[in-house]
This record gives sequence, C-alpha cells and structure tokens, in this order.
Amino acid sequence: MHRVDLNCDMGESFGVWKMGVDEQILPYITSANLACGFHAGDPATMRKSVVRALEHGIGIGAHPGLPDLAGFGRRNMDITPRDAYDMVVYQIGALYGFVRSEGGVLQHVKPHGALYNMAAKSARLSEAIAEAVYKVDPTLILFGLSGSELVKAGEAIGLRTAHEVFADRTYQQDGTLTPRSQADALITDEDTSVQQVLRMVKEGKVTSRQGADISIQADTVCLHGDGAHALEFARKIRSLLEQSEVAVQAVSH
Amino acid sequence: MHRVDLNCDMGESFGVWKMGVDEQILPYITSANLACGFHAGDPATMRKSVVRALEHGIGIGAHPGLPDLAGFGRRNMDITPRDAYDMVVYQIGALYGFVRSEGGVLQHVKPHGALYNMAAKSARLSEAIAEAVYKVDPTLILFGLSGSELVKAGEAIGLRTAHEVFADRTYQQDGTLTPRSQADALITDEDTSVQQVLRMVKEGKVTSRQGADISIQADTVCLHGDGAHALEFARKIRSLLEQSEVAVQAVSH
Amino acid sequence: MHRVDLNCDMGESFGVWKMGVDEQILPYITSANLACGFHAGDPATMRKSVVRALEHGIGIGAHPGLPDLAGFGRRNMDITPRDAYDMVVYQIGALYGFVRSEGGVLQHVKPHGALYNMAAKSARLSEAIAEAVYKVDPTLILFGLSGSELVKAGEAIGLRTAHEVFADRTYQQDGTLTPRSQADALITDEDTSVQQVLRMVKEGKVTSRQGADISIQADTVCLHGDGAHALEFARKIRSLLEQSEVAVQAVSH
Amino acid sequence: MHRVDLNCDMGESFGVWKMGVDEQILPYITSANLACGFHAGDPATMRKSVVRALEHGIGIGAHPGLPDLAGFGRRNMDITPRDAYDMVVYQIGALYGFVRSEGGVLQHVKPHGALYNMAAKSARLSEAIAEAVYKVDPTLILFGLSGSELVKAGEAIGLRTAHEVFADRTYQQDGTLTPRSQADALITDEDTSVQQVLRMVKEGKVTSRQGADISIQADTVCLHGDGAHALEFARKIRSLLEQSEVAVQAVSH
Repeated sequence: MHRVDLNCDMGESFGVWKMGVDEQILPYITSANLACGFHAGDPATMRKSVVRALEHGIGIGAHPGLPDLAGFGRRNMDITPRDAYDMVVYQIGALYGFVRSEGGVLQHVKPHGALYNMAAKSARLSEAIAEAVYKVDPTLILFGLSGSELVKAGEAIGLRTAHEVFADRTYQQDGTLTPRSQADALITDEDTSVQQVLRMVKEGKVTSRQGADISIQADTVCLHGDGAHALEFARKIRSLLEQSEVAVQAVSH
Repeated sequence: MHRVDLNCDMGESFGVWKMGVDEQILPYITSANLACGFHAGDPATMRKSVVRALEHGIGIGAHPGLPDLAGFGRRNMDITPRDAYDMVVYQIGALYGFVRSEGGVLQHVKPHGALYNMAAKSARLSEAIAEAVYKVDPTLILFGLSGSELVKAGEAIGLRTAHEVFADRTYQQDGTLTPRSQADALITDEDTSVQQVLRMVKEGKVTSRQGADISIQADTVCLHGDGAHALEFARKIRSLLEQSEVAVQAVSH
Repeated sequence: MHRVDLNCDMGESFGVWKMGVDEQILPYITSANLACGFHAGDPATMRKSVVRALEHGIGIGAHPGLPDLAGFGRRNMDITPRDAYDMVVYQIGALYGFVRSEGGVLQHVKPHGALYNMAAKSARLSEAIAEAVYKVDPTLILFGLSGSELVKAGEAIGLRTAHEVFADRTYQQDGTLTPRSQADALITDEDTSVQQVLRMVKEGKVTSRQGADISIQADTVCLHGDGAHALEFARKIRSLLEQSEVAVQAVSH
Repeated sequence: MHRVDLNCDMGESFGVWKMGVDEQILPYITSANLACGFHAGDPATMRKSVVRALEHGIGIGAHPGLPDLAGFGRRNMDITPRDAYDMVVYQIGALYGFVRSEGGVLQHVKPHGALYNMAAKSARLSEAIAEAVYKVDPTLILFGLSGSELVKAGEAIGLRTAHEVFADRTYQQDGTLTPRSQADALITDEDTSVQQVLRMVKEGKVTSRQGADISIQADTVCLHGDGAHALEFARKIRSLLEQSEVAVQAVSH
C-alpha cells in the first residue's frame, strides 16, 4: 500500500499580527512546519503551535528561515554555508525548547522560503544545512524539494529524508519546478492538482510541462495554510488519497 | 572543605561588533553564561562560545535576556510572566542547539540584566522563569541573586539552584544589593572585594553597608568579562580562593 | 462654531502581515497617525499610507513607538528621557522622508502605546519628546492625552498641541483615564460613547465615573482602526458631530 | 586647481557596541557617511555623529544599508527596486531628523556595503535609489562608485553626483574594482596607494591591473575608519594631497 505525508507551514503569526488558518487545517495534515522566529513566529506563537500540533497528533518540524522578518524570509541572501549552519542550529534548538517543554518529539526540519530554494540548487548550502540537522539530532528527518541537492546532502550525511512535491506547481523535464516567473508555473485547476498528486504518490511519475513523463519521489506533499481555497483543497486531497488507498501518515510513522 | 563556582557573562559580541575578553578570562572561571541572541549573541558567536567553553571544560549556561538589542537587555520591560516563560524557553532551546551539536551538556540558566533584576524581586516572574527552565530540562541549575525570589522559585519547583554573589557590590541589611544609584553601591578597592568574597564563601556572612553582619549563601561569584581590571581581578580572586582552601569548581561538579 | 479633529492609528501592517481597515476608515477621519517602523510599519507600508492619506486630504502624523515589534510597543520600557528623544527624532525623520518624497506636509506627532501612556504621567519623558518634536520642526502639532504632562510639555516649549480624548473610555475625577484593569474602564454602549464625545467637544465637560462633571479639552478624538465596529462607529460619530454643527477638521486647518 | 573630497564611513556603533575611531579621523576628512540604523547605527549614535560632524564642519551624508544588522549589510539580498527605494527614503529621512534637529544640512547619500555594490552593477536598482534621493531632496549629492550605474542613474535624474575612488583597491581594464576574491584586489603598500590617488585626482587616470592606463573620475576618495593604519593613512594622504596643490574640500563646497 502506498503512503504519503501531508505537510503545511504553520505558526507564521508574529506578535499582534495573525496569519493562516492553522486551527482549521490541522485535521487534514500529518506534519506541521513551524516558523522559528527569523522570518516569522515569535516565542508565544511557537509554544501555542507546538501545543496544538501535539493535541492533533501531528508530526512537528522546525521551519528555519533567513533573518528577514520584513521580507518573510523570501528574499535570497548571499549567506555563507557557515551562516546557514549557524542559523539552522539556532532555530531548530529554539523550537526544540518548546517541543521538549511540552513533552513532545521533534520529527523533522524543513528550510523555509528562500533558504529552501537556495539549498535546492546549492550543494554547499545543502551540506551545511544537513550537517546542522544531523549534529543537533541525527534522528531528525530532513524535508527538501524532491530530487534536490538538499535531500541528496541529507542522505549523504546519514539523515532520513522526505522528498517533497507540490500539488499546484508544474515540473520541468529535469524534475525542477517551473519558475514562478513563467506563465504555466502554477496549476490553478483543482482537479488537475489532485490528479498530479495521486499519480506522483502512486506511480512515482509526473508529466512535465514539456509533455513527457518523468520520475519523481513523493514522500510528502506541501499544502498551503492560507488563501481562500486552502482548507477546501486540503480536505479534498486528503479524502481522495484515502479513497485511493493511499495511507496518509506523518513521515515518522 | 568549602567550594565555590566562578561565573562570567560571555558570548556578548554581535555580528561585526566584539565585546569582552572571553578567550583570556576562561582559564580563571568555572561557569560561562552565554548570551542567546535577544540582548546580545548571534548564532555564530554562540557556536564559537560553546566550542571554547567545552575546550576549557567550563560549565555552560544559557543567559537569556529581554528582546532589546539596542539596550543590551538592561532596560526593564513590563512583560507578563507568560512573556518571560516564552522568551526563556526559546533562548535556552537556541543555545541547547549549539551545546547538543557540539556534544556538550547544558549546565545552568542565568537570566540577564533587567530580566535578572526584575525576577529577583518578582515572585510571579520568577515562577514563570523557573517553570520554563524546569520544563525544558529539570536537571538544569538555576542561577539567581542570593536569597532572591528567583532562587526561591527554582527551589519550589524542584530545580537545583545556585545563589549568586557579587564581589564588587555592597549589600543592604535585608540582603539585597545596594542600588547603583546610591553612592556606596560599588566596591572599588580590590582587596575589599576579595575579602568580601572570601568571607561570603567561607563564613556565609557579609557586612552590610549599615555595618552589621548578615547571612548570605554564596554558591557562585559573578566576575566581569570586560573592563580594564577584569582579567587581573579574576586571576587574583581565583588564586586567593585556592590558597584559602576553597575548591573552585563548576556548580555541577 | 465648535470644531474637532478625528484621528486614527494607521499603517500598522508589517511585511506580509496586514492590520486595520485603513482604506475604508479614511473617509471618516481627518488626521492619520502613521507607525514609523519601531512597533509596526515597514518602509513600504509607510509610503503607501502617506500616499493614501494625501489622496484623502488627511492630516499626516508620525506615530513613534518603543522599539518592541513583538510587543507592538505596548509594553512599558524603562527608557531614559534621552532614549525617548532619540527614538522620536529618528521616527519622525523616517516618516518625514516619505512625506517629503510624496510632496506632502507633516502635520503632527502622536506617541504610540506605552510611550504615549508613560509620557502622559512623566514630565521628564514628556519634555524630552516635546523637545524632539520641536527641534525637528517647531511647526509640528503634538498630540497627547488631554490634560497630560505631554501636552503641558509641548505647550511649555512652544509647540501647538492637540488635547486628545477617547470615545470609549471612562474618565476619573482627576481627568485621567480609568485604567483598563478596572471593570468600568471601557464604554461598550455606542450611544453613550457618542454622547460623551459630543459633550466633551461642545461643553468641554465629561462625567467622571465617580459621577461628577469635570472639565476636559477635546481637540481631537481617537478612533479605532480595527475591530468589528470600527467603521460603523466612525461613520456614526462623524455624522452626529456634523449634525450637531461641529466642524470636523484636521487640527492644522 | 584640482580638488577632491575625502569621505569616511562613520557612526557604525550599535547600542553598547563600539566601532571605529570617528573622533580621531574627523580632522582628516571632509565628508562623513553616517549609518542609519539598518546595518549599523542606533538613534543615539546617529545624534552624536551628527553633532560631531557639525563641530568639525564636515559634510554629512546618509549611508543607508540593507536591513541586516547581523551581517552589517554586507550580504547581497535579492531586493526589488521598490524595496531599495523604500529603504533609502526611510533611512535618509531618519538621519535627516537628526541633521535638522541639530541645525545642520544634509549634503549627500552614499549607499552602504552590499547595497552599494549591487547598485554599481544594476541600472534598475540604481534608478530606484537615485529616485529615492531625488524625491526626498533634489539638492542632495549622490555618491557612487566612479563610472558605475549608480552615478549614471543619479545624473540621469538630475542629481549632482560624486564619483568615488578607492585608495587601496586595484582597478580592472573596464574601470571596475578587482573583486576581493582575486589575489591582487588590494593594494597593501601605502605609497602605491597614495600615488594611485594622486594620479586619479590630478590626471584622471589609473593603471589597471592589466597594465594599461584607463580614465577615471575621482571626486571623492573613500578612507577607512578603523583598522590599525586608518588614522596614519588618512593623515598621510591628506598631507600629500595638500602638498600637491589639490584642494581637499567637501563635495558641496
């Protein structure tokens, strides 16, 4: 029987500012990536998010980002691998404080935003991030773009990894995501999205935007935590996966 | 045989800005309080400080502060006990990331600056801080002003505590420090400082500024990590303590 | 004929996080207090807010706050008068950059949150803030709690001031606001709020919670920019003021 | 008679952390670039730096940087031209607050670190920065790398500009600086440095590292404000320029 994890970025509020519909989307997902204070997420939000995830039995992950609150960690920064190592250790540790104080277990680490995208293409950044995760706790699972440098670096150092796929993005012939700057980067039709996910999970294949089938590993699917259709889409994809005899479980199960 | 710990605030550089003579003072102390990013200390500084402390076999402590980089965590802020709890869990966790990734053990927690001073007098803040420390790891040792609300709260929740004394400050009849705003708050004569420490450690007594002897518990002495005389004073006090048959050891020994 | 200004805090978004219904409330107010980056408001938000205020012909004010983004500038900090001076000059200047680049004129300065509340009671903080405003531009109008130390300090240094009143807060016999910690601090009935404002503006009187009439100067009324009833209340109060032959105008008119 | 301006980055302390020998180098320079809070420089430092520059009759410039305190604004960030515009307006404004409150005049704007380097090569970023400067105050002088996109954009929009040269860097055949990653990027011999400056100022020429003479415009020379030899070098270069009948004056004279 096939299995897959559904993950979602969460805990992205900051101070008085709220973001996302964390409470409502939790029933549909199996892993939560929690912001750690650099791009979003203050200490109080982190605590509340950990408590909620534990109540729902969701796998908890650190979602370390670049130190760019005003830019939400989405602007590439020319950091060194050493910078990346240090900021990932710091942020995993900070979240670990809340997980430990609430009696939970940290399941995974998924870099956020520009850090995720830069690592996908850079072996050196990826090695630094994988080393940070491994040295803090070698039992942590590293999430990265399916087939990317990040999952390769994780596997090379001895970490369990989860290859992540996207429901609403098109893929290129080489397995990378079509850049958002291109017209057909996003899949806006919900049924097409759902079918793409089902096929990635069950067959390990996706049709590239050039029209050919390519192989892809789909351990975990990234769902969105805000936007008008986030909840409806999460409900639908979970329901269809289960109807299709795919076990929807946290990666650590 | 009497024993005492000598602690010093460290890792207080930030980015390109350097502070303190950490490298030189390490041979004279037994516990290091490392800034965790809120009032000082960036991730790279934290990593280097942990590595150095481990090389010298020094007890490593988290030194969580108020989120006030421009004010170095020295300005009182009207935070709630819940705020204090959250910022202490976050900062202990962040430092713990580096301690764990370097294969070390976290020994203690000592709040910094205004957080330390506010907690000394506030039972509610102290209870929140003690709970934060206890829930992250009940084997951590909580450092607080000797006789303060903070050590009381630590003992009440079941933590080991270390009563901290100061070499260069005068004490009032009720055992509190003379406020810096008063003329005789500071002891500037080195010999007087050293003798005050020796007596606190060996006899458990200090002469208040009103002239009477009062009882005081001296588990750890706070030394300064910068200023012209910091190194010379650290060398002298350690030497005199050892000549006086006081074992100078980290609190966890 | 009586006249009054209606002011509202605005531009309190930060990065990806949105706050308030600035666009919708602008038609009902005459002065906007714009966050300047310390407690809320990033540079992009400041620019957009200035542009919008100019389009609506609203008086633009700087709304400087404490450097506490996570606490939204609402937590008292033990800053020195010199700290207050410096942070007010900085923030007025920053907003002035946008006002000048958009061809507008800066009308007023109103300290935010804890800075406003601390200044209301502290002559020394108020003198520092008033000096900051005066030295940046002596034609600026200083907004402060009606009858507070802040408006006194502004008048003493030679600034125009605007005494600010609140529609939804009760007043004590000495003219100060009833602290929020007390049960009857807030007026929740809309009609009572509106009548209180009308009487303050037209008669210069308010009934204290102890039941006696006291004198109060009402140059400007603070309206809220978020919450379910903010828009409806703003519409209602402006309408009733105009029906009661009160000219609703920016303080600089 | 030839003339040149000597500028130096200043006001780069932050909170308790000190940087630079501002007080000592002021007698040798004619323009000061003051950090504005994003990469360095808190409000108190800005005020003190403005006061000192006015006392010495030095031309005061804003030195806006990227919002990266931990990285001192030296790490490239993938900001949009709109981001650049907004952060430059904000920072010029903030410094302008202090210049105005001290009765001075703002002379120039020089982007800092990575913002300076990115702008040198990007016409779009440069146009945004030049527009920001122009819209805040069209009489400001824009400093940029000699021959760069930044000075071109400044001239295109109608600003006065100052072409900046470096004493201790080698130049390539196309007039750009040799990247620091290359072995011969830095000139370590002081006499060579001084001769390079003299020739740039008096003849408008520099010998490229490929050995050929190229044209270069030298309106202002960047001196360093820290490092062991900063003071000695500043003294020497000013002395030799004056002996060589070059008028050393602020660009606005």
